[in-house]
Amino acid sequence: MIEHVKDAHAKGSWLTYRPDIRILDCTIRDGGLINDHRFEDGFVRAVYEACVASGVDYMEIGYRASKRIYPPKDFGPWKYCDEEDVRRIAGDNPTSLKLAVMADAERTDYKEDILPKKDSVMDCVRVAAYIHQIPVALDMIQDAHEKGYEVVMQLMAVSVVQDRELEEALQMLAASPVTAIYLVDSFGALYSEQVRDLTLTYLKALEGTGKSVGIHAHNNQQLAYANTIEALIMGASRLDATMNGMGRGAGNCPLELLIGFLKNPKFHLRPVLQCIQEHFLPLDGEMEWGFRIPYMITGQLNRHPRAAIELRRGESPDDYVSFYDHMVEEE
Amino acid sequence: MIEHVKDAHAKGSWLTYRPDIRILDCTIRDGGLINDHRFEDGFVRAVYEACVASGVDYMEIGYRASKRIYPPKDFGPWKYCDEEDVRRIAGDNPTSLKLAVMADAERTDYKEDILPKKDSVMDCVRVAAYIHQIPVALDMIQDAHEKGYEVVMQLMAVSVVQDRELEEALQMLAASPVTAIYLVDSFGALYSEQVRDLTLTYLKALEGTGKSVGIHAHNNQQLAYANTIEALIMGASRLDATMNGMGRGAGNCPLELLIGFLKNPKFHLRPVLQCIQEHFLPLDGEMEWGFRIPYMITGQLNRHPRAAIELRRGESPDDYVSFYDHMVEEE
Repeated sequence: MIEHVKDAHAKGSWLTYRPDIRILDCTIRDGGLINDHRFEDGFVRAVYEACVASGVDYMEIGYRASKRIYPPKDFGPWKYCDEEDVRRIAGDNPTSLKLAVMADAERTDYKEDILPKKDSVMDCVRVAAYIHQIPVALDMIQDAHEKGYEVVMQLMAVSVVQDRELEEALQMLAASPVTAIYLVDSFGALYSEQVRDLTLTYLKALEGTGKSVGIHAHNNQQLAYANTIEALIMGASRLDATMNGMGRGAGNCPLELLIGFLKNPKFHLRPVLQCIQEHFLPLDGEMEWGFRIPYMITGQLNRHPRAAIELRRGESPDDYVSFYDHMVEEE
Repeated sequence: MIEHVKDAHAKGSWLTYRPDIRILDCTIRDGGLINDHRFEDGFVRAVYEACVASGVDYMEIGYRASKRIYPPKDFGPWKYCDEEDVRRIAGDNPTSLKLAVMADAERTDYKEDILPKKDSVMDCVRVAAYIHQIPVALDMIQDAHEKGYEVVMQLMAVSVVQDRELEEALQMLAASPVTAIYLVDSFGALYSEQVRDLTLTYLKALEGTGKSVGIHAHNNQQLAYANTIEALIMGASRLDATMNGMGRGAGNCPLELLIGFLKNPKFHLRPVLQCIQEHFLPLDGEMEWGFRIPYMITGQLNRHPRAAIELRRGESPDDYVSFYDHMVEEE
């Protein structure tokens, strides 16, 4: 007999589909880290329309960064997502796609810059914070919640968080008004077994609260998609992906792979392929993202991809051996 | 508490290492499918030397194809791996690296072309066959075994084999003198749960025989590495990989990723990085391999990558939408 070992913790198999799944496309938000958020309107609109057509649930269109900290002369509009910029793309967004914006702890003037929901086309605020910023994050969550938004939490760089601190952070977030907490592999360092353990840890912390667990993976070790489906199988239901895997450094879980895996008939692959073909391929040579060996090295070492990104932008982007020697030396 | 759910079937965790692991580098063999096996000697020698330096156990250097079926004027030397060609690279191979050659069922004049072991520098014959060729494969296995070689079995395209036939094939192979049977995802179609089930199926069929299970994965869905470590964790111990992921179509499990995962101190990453930097990067523009959306489409449809390879070699290599429409139409 062929072995069909149903994992005791699995929440489905590759042939079933779960109606609780929500995909968030963060192409423009994470991709903006490559080009200082200077996308043309036509590109952002193409991604928006492909999100609508493909059945994606959320589109994260950028950051709401502080203009004091980040002067607008240095960045494109998707660093701030001013209401008028978003409306230039989406109008009043008369679709079932929800619009999300990321608010970075200590990098957002949230009290002023996040408007009451009734004055905004945005639906969801995603608060991003490292573990030591949890107190700030909780205040941001409360603020956005009271203003009328759905609020979700992006707890960054979990691969370098100690178990005890994670535990405590999850308890505090479980008591907050967020609807979901994302497991975020900022460094692309996690292996499937770690994703499995962490997903179950998050699920357990949120048990009985009605909150969901999400996954945001990076592709430093060619595991962004694999880890996303691992988390999904374990019970995560909020899945981040980007078209063509666009995103900082090694990029993210490709939306086209994820839609191919999900059997949920509400998602459609063709509009994503069309958008990639018409709008992403022409960027070749202009913007770089996706798996490269320097990102693998920082991922294997569980380090921020910063040094690898600098290498790729420098004069010897392919000097893998010197980079490896340098990174191992630093350990 | 952080959840650490030890899978009942797992044979290790990501922090342990298993001394039974054997890596086979099939860069030249699988990569030869891209360029009709016309690698320069310098390239083959660089791969050979990097295999030795990195601690890889086996190097599969090419095919032993029939010169009647494949006239030598149409292919490079690694289609045949004549003794003199291999010795030009490896001499008498005074190293601990074992040399392997692939013999395709119905494509090899094995009785004549596989010499007695004492006259050959090769150590291992890997017999490759589709399920309907098992009777031929068994004769080839017997022949190579009697001539003195280690023989392993590559059972192709398991993603389209019916359970009952697989069962029977594994029983016959379990009774043969092979030392290992590889789970081969020729179409890059398998998801982790399928790899898991299949690995356990192979292990069960071989229980008590002393034979090992191997995994040979393709990267059509960016899962070659993820599926390789999934099989490894479930108990597979013979792992195929290629430098820089070189291989037909979407390519294979990258050796550099695999070595980064294995904690076994006998494997070394640096020589692989050096070989890639010096010998693989200059091939950019000359040879193409690695993940591309057309390969994703054939992988998702569980189809041979043939059509995607043709698309990439044709005049509209990036016309993903037409290709998708065409492939779905054919279903």
